[in-house]
Amino acid sequence: MKYYVGVDLGGTNIAAGVVDENYQIISRHHVRTYASKTFEELIADIAKAVYDVVDKANLSMSEIVSVGLGTPSCINPETGMLVHANNLNWENVPLPKEMEKHFQVPVFIRNDADCAALGEVLAGAASKYDNALMVTLGTGVGGGIIMDKQIFNGSDHMGAEVGHTKLVYEGIKCTCGQYGCFESYASATALIRRTKETMQQHPESIINDLCENDTDAVDAKMVFDAAQLGDVTALGLIDQYINYVAAGLSTLIVIFRPQVIIVGGGISNQREYLIDPLKKKLIRYTFAAEKIGVPHVIAAELGNDAGIIGAAMIGCQT
Amino acid sequence: MKYYVGVDLGGTNIAAGVVDENYQIISRHHVRTYASKTFEELIADIAKAVYDVVDKANLSMSEIVSVGLGTPSCINPETGMLVHANNLNWENVPLPKEMEKHFQVPVFIRNDADCAALGEVLAGAASKYDNALMVTLGTGVGGGIIMDKQIFNGSDHMGAEVGHTKLVYEGIKCTCGQYGCFESYASATALIRRTKETMQQHPESIINDLCENDTDAVDAKMVFDAAQLGDVTALGLIDQYINYVAAGLSTLIVIFRPQVIIVGGGISNQREYLIDPLKKKLIRYTFAAEKIGVPHVIAAELGNDAGIIGAAMIGCQT
Repeated sequence: MKYYVGVDLGGTNIAAGVVDENYQIISRHHVRTYASKTFEELIADIAKAVYDVVDKANLSMSEIVSVGLGTPSCINPETGMLVHANNLNWENVPLPKEMEKHFQVPVFIRNDADCAALGEVLAGAASKYDNALMVTLGTGVGGGIIMDKQIFNGSDHMGAEVGHTKLVYEGIKCTCGQYGCFESYASATALIRRTKETMQQHPESIINDLCENDTDAVDAKMVFDAAQLGDVTALGLIDQYINYVAAGLSTLIVIFRPQVIIVGGGISNQREYLIDPLKKKLIRYTFAAEKIGVPHVIAAELGNDAGIIGAAMIGCQT
Repeated sequence: MKYYVGVDLGGTNIAAGVVDENYQIISRHHVRTYASKTFEELIADIAKAVYDVVDKANLSMSEIVSVGLGTPSCINPETGMLVHANNLNWENVPLPKEMEKHFQVPVFIRNDADCAALGEVLAGAASKYDNALMVTLGTGVGGGIIMDKQIFNGSDHMGAEVGHTKLVYEGIKCTCGQYGCFESYASATALIRRTKETMQQHPESIINDLCENDTDAVDAKMVFDAAQLGDVTALGLIDQYINYVAAGLSTLIVIFRPQVIIVGGGISNQREYLIDPLKKKLIRYTFAAEKIGVPHVIAAELGNDAGIIGAAMIGCQT
């Protein structure tokens, strides 16, 4: 049996796992870290997490084929450079090279959304498919594109910025500074924003009760909870939200024609109110849907494990 | 020296060329054909054009490595099936297999926009680049995506439908039946449509003179001609048009990050009034343009030869 280590490196959390060649996580380890640490301290924290998780699996580092790091960053896997990481305040860091000072195992690096998509395709919701688009509806809209079971990143690995495709020409301003990005309409944040704008004009809406009339307390789950109770305002908000999600996905469908779209993020468990209607709306919004069809739509299955499994297997990407 | 035949198969015209391994066209042959012909008749016409162009090059079929066909159709190169061709009224036709009955040379098939993009990357405007997007602004918006000098078509070769990415959520109706497609705003047809809508409100515009007050006679060149004469209406129309082109391209840039965008179509020779301002507008409309930059923008160079050269080289695609 071959063993790999996958590390999901967030701004405040290092999650590591030993993954076997059948994509099973056989040990896990979590540690908190801080963006305020120096680069060397953080590298040391990651290295220690790797040693610890290997130890937990009753293995030694010499039995590990490779270590993969998934980070919410702009990566150049060919040069091994982490080009830019907002949450870690890093620019142009040779992360794998630094890691390799700590152990004699090759280290690979990729964007965390790509790792999650790869994990779901190798071992999760999309294991039957070779070509998949994973879209994570959260604070923003993250995306990972897998073609022939390989991560697709475009030229110089700088592409696949799914959330910043245009959906509304000259639309509302996105956090990126551009206008009308898919993310500005299809993130959970966007749903919450529109809910806040709408609920006060609808004092009869249950959403007002669920948040105890504190609009700052509104979250996406409250909107879905209200919809399940038959709240007309919530149902309308969700219907409009899914229109945006479907229309934005249609752009990615006509370009990639993935076999399946994997929906991740906190709201992806809303099967009846999100996943099922999204399937129907994709037909409405996608070019040549009647002739060619549209991809299957499924919810992500692996949660945070997807990122660990995907990161572990980066070294196996051709 | 190795020789290849490329055929650009339109609805009314068969253009064939013998292309050598340095991507030079060494003989050409054009014949008219008719969509009303039977399938067998059309196959025979194509085969005859291939024999004739090889003859013109003073070669024999035994010296030809492969024949490539570019058609304005939906293709599955793996099965060799022409899935759907609007202009020829064909559905699910095994075109290469039928062609191979006429000569003992392997026949390959691809979409004509992909062939043109490949031709420009191998031998034309983008020969310095490996990763390019070609966008043809004509009746519609055609596109070809070349990654690592290979045609990119997405899963099952059904993707890369550049013209039908969404640009304006719930925008105007496209010929495809969907709403707000890139093509509906960025084609030459769209520029003409908006010109017609606008010129009558501006009787002072030179466009009225150029078309002799016959709005049906307006073409894209008249708008650019008027702009060159300083016509404010024309300048405004073109400025708005380039905004749409740039915004639509921004979606493709954030996904593919091509090194270069090749602009084709009749208006692509409008350097000062189209290509140069488009470069600037891409910066305005593209995510992270300040950090990552935007692709170069160049006009296509090879005209119809691009499709012949690209088609000829399909067999060399891995």
